[in-house]
Amino acid sequence: MPRYALRIEYHGGPFAGWQRQADQPSVQGAVEAALARLEPGPHTIAAAGRTDAGVHAFGQVAHCDLEKDWDPFRLSEALNYHLKPQPVAILAAARVDDDWHARFSAVERRYLFRLLVRRAPATLQRGLVWQVKAPLDLDAMRAGAAYLVGRHDFTTFRSTMCQAESPVKTLDEISIEPVARETAAEFHFRLRARSFLHNQVRSIVGTLERVGAGSWSPEDVKSALDAADRAACGPVCPPEGLYLADVGYPEDPFAAD
Amino acid sequence: MPRYALRIEYHGGPFAGWQRQADQPSVQGAVEAALARLEPGPHTIAAAGRTDAGVHAFGQVAHCDLEKDWDPFRLSEALNYHLKPQPVAILAAARVDDDWHARFSAVERRYLFRLLVRRAPATLQRGLVWQVKAPLDLDAMRAGAAYLVGRHDFTTFRSTMCQAESPVKTLDEISIEPVARETAAEFHFRLRARSFLHNQVRSIVGTLERVGAGSWSPEDVKSALDAADRAACGPVCPPEGLYLADVGYPEDPFAAD
Repeated sequence: MPRYALRIEYHGGPFAGWQRQADQPSVQGAVEAALARLEPGPHTIAAAGRTDAGVHAFGQVAHCDLEKDWDPFRLSEALNYHLKPQPVAILAAARVDDDWHARFSAVERRYLFRLLVRRAPATLQRGLVWQVKAPLDLDAMRAGAAYLVGRHDFTTFRSTMCQAESPVKTLDEISIEPVARETAAEFHFRLRARSFLHNQVRSIVGTLERVGAGSWSPEDVKSALDAADRAACGPVCPPEGLYLADVGYPEDPFAAD
Repeated sequence: MPRYALRIEYHGGPFAGWQRQADQPSVQGAVEAALARLEPGPHTIAAAGRTDAGVHAFGQVAHCDLEKDWDPFRLSEALNYHLKPQPVAILAAARVDDDWHARFSAVERRYLFRLLVRRAPATLQRGLVWQVKAPLDLDAMRAGAAYLVGRHDFTTFRSTMCQAESPVKTLDEISIEPVARETAAEFHFRLRARSFLHNQVRSIVGTLERVGAGSWSPEDVKSALDAADRAACGPVCPPEGLYLADVGYPEDPFAAD
């Protein structure tokens, strides 16, 4: 059966997360149901990042196996037709080798976190950002973030539900940039690693927000990391500011399109 | 009674427009109802731009008269409290002179129009952009737009419902810029004038999209303008990409805050 890679964008709001669940809407379930309109199922697709409830993506990658030899463009068009009106879109499809795997072939994940800082409630950005009211000190957040870059035991910054075998991960990059978006000042956090632990990005951003607000010092981030204790983590921030932005592979499966 | 200027942001989706209506939700009605929670009404507020159903704003300006001498910051906070959970937010409030008028004192309006170009359906941007599928020629759109800048009879580009006394207006600026927003290429149209006719921005953007798609030449825009005939207009584009971005006054009422 030919295998296809899919690049997927979605609004996480209406979904209980990526992963298929018996009684709640999921992104995986939505895509599998659309596939079943093309070829009888059941279909089981695998994704690079199993995003949590409410988390968005504009660069999720999944793969599926189909009987028919589909033209990749026609496949994406047909899936988008059947996905409507759900906020899930196939941005690209590509034929890949039979042993290519959206999750296991991936060598890099990138996440974006949008943090809106202002007193007035979000209207246009609602559901697309995490909003805090108090101003944040960018330099302090950057100083705190610097302690997290590199290879560390991230036990402090992972959910107790995390199923990864090891808490040791290499965080290749955290950048924090102020971004002007119409009337609002946002901070965009960009994190890059081969792979992430469960809730790692939200644990890090929630902790760095405490640094920006002045209730933690940058050095407190180092102490929390060194503690290797989940109880040392700052508050885990809500999902609506988080986006799976990109997944890297040794060769970009979509490049030939 | 002290008069206050309010800078207002809203998501136009749930509203039948700015203007209060007997049986449909409106932005004016929402703000007046919030005012009535502070001081017994009825309140009647005036706005710089009476946006249509579905049109957004991040720089609408209105004024209200209140009995009490409100601290402007406390006024905006109290209004935001009572506006929740509606997607309307008071970004700033300021005390103004008794003869200051949000509409009649205004000397400039700025609009932004977000046009998303891609085949896959919008998910994260849904309701916030107008989406077209076919690529657009930026240079052609700019060449067409250039014919509209300046003082002209804009009969072609105004709704037959327009109540303005004269169709002659001076359009000070139309700029069109490509903007990369995550996975999507957008064009941002920015229009600036002392005042606009009803549906003028949407008539212009809808026409320029036809130029970008190649079904109109840039010179066809000039012919349409010269015709001074509503029937010569291109299709009026939908409201969800349109934002009232800013209103200018001889002195910025919010500058002192």
